[in-house]
Amino acid sequence: MNSSQLPGIPYEYVEEDVYNNKSPLLLKYNPVHKKIPVLLHDGKPIAESLLIVEYIDETWKLNPILPHDPYEKAMARFWANFIDNKCWPAILKANRSPQNEREKSMEEACECLKTLETALHGNKFFGGDTIGLADIAANFIAFWLSIVQEANGLELLSAEKFPHLFKWSDELVNCSVVNETLPPRDKLLAVFKARFAAATEAQ
Amino acid sequence: MNSSQLPGIPYEYVEEDVYNNKSPLLLKYNPVHKKIPVLLHDGKPIAESLLIVEYIDETWKLNPILPHDPYEKAMARFWANFIDNKCWPAILKANRSPQNEREKSMEEACECLKTLETALHGNKFFGGDTIGLADIAANFIAFWLSIVQEANGLELLSAEKFPHLFKWSDELVNCSVVNETLPPRDKLLAVFKARFAAATEAQ
Repeated sequence: MNSSQLPGIPYEYVEEDVYNNKSPLLLKYNPVHKKIPVLLHDGKPIAESLLIVEYIDETWKLNPILPHDPYEKAMARFWANFIDNKCWPAILKANRSPQNEREKSMEEACECLKTLETALHGNKFFGGDTIGLADIAANFIAFWLSIVQEANGLELLSAEKFPHLFKWSDELVNCSVVNETLPPRDKLLAVFKARFAAATEAQ
Repeated sequence: MNSSQLPGIPYEYVEEDVYNNKSPLLLKYNPVHKKIPVLLHDGKPIAESLLIVEYIDETWKLNPILPHDPYEKAMARFWANFIDNKCWPAILKANRSPQNEREKSMEEACECLKTLETALHGNKFFGGDTIGLADIAANFIAFWLSIVQEANGLELLSAEKFPHLFKWSDELVNCSVVNETLPPRDKLLAVFKARFAAATEAQ
């Protein structure tokens, strides 16, 4: 997949220090959740990742992200929500839980990945042949999780455990349209290694 | 608003005992969450309340529930998600929390209602003049909460605290299209009174 197959809208990226110093702009444009991301278009703010993707899809019609058929669309939303509301918290918990709770939380995260492995139905992407809403939602599994695993040595996703999902993650991060928007892997790995070392010391 | 202003699709309602005895049908059609509601249309299952409403809106085009404009649509989804993901858990927690945690949880639930009070912008409904996605999502505040409040004596929503939201709740439950689908108030009140009495005794 090349960059012509996703909307490819030019944008300006504004960085936020969400942990220590939220900007007045962020508090103005997302006063309810005070979280990133926020898309500002024609002076109007849209918050929440999946809602931003749906807005982009409905505003720029070239190379649609969601299918046209209502049932297929509902399925794309179902898996995107499952990834956002279930998998993300479970994987985060597994990576942050103290030693005595780790086994249980790793099991729960694995259950989520197992569900996703089945949901792929042997397809290249959750969206079928092209990247869809659920693939975008699951980008953290393809990119972020592999770095976190290398930093803390806790293996959730591997080719042995989840062959289809592992292949999917490889396909996704190697798409140029995805790859060129990702932060440098080595920088992120160094950040996570330092963070896990500090957390281990504090325990 | 009368019934001709919402899609008015004929349907068969199948009751589920989700607490004690989930049916094989439910487990077949919503194997991921094992929860209600599930809409079955042409043999295909759609799960998750808000996704069902979007599916209905996209399948039967008469009397739309969501606005056509992408930004207005994003706003409807934003408030519906806020109600579903923030208000519902906060209000549930406030009503179930033990005595020593009640003040804090009541405060958090009130914060959510305060946000909704502002979000109404003095309109009749979150959808403007007609019922929209956020109004449907917030139906539990208009109907369920007033019964729970009467059962356990914990007041979250009142005309004094949140005049706009209170007026909205009155408008919503008195719409014939909403009213005729609600379960009998007195039966529900009796169920909640018995439940709270049992919970108080157990503490």
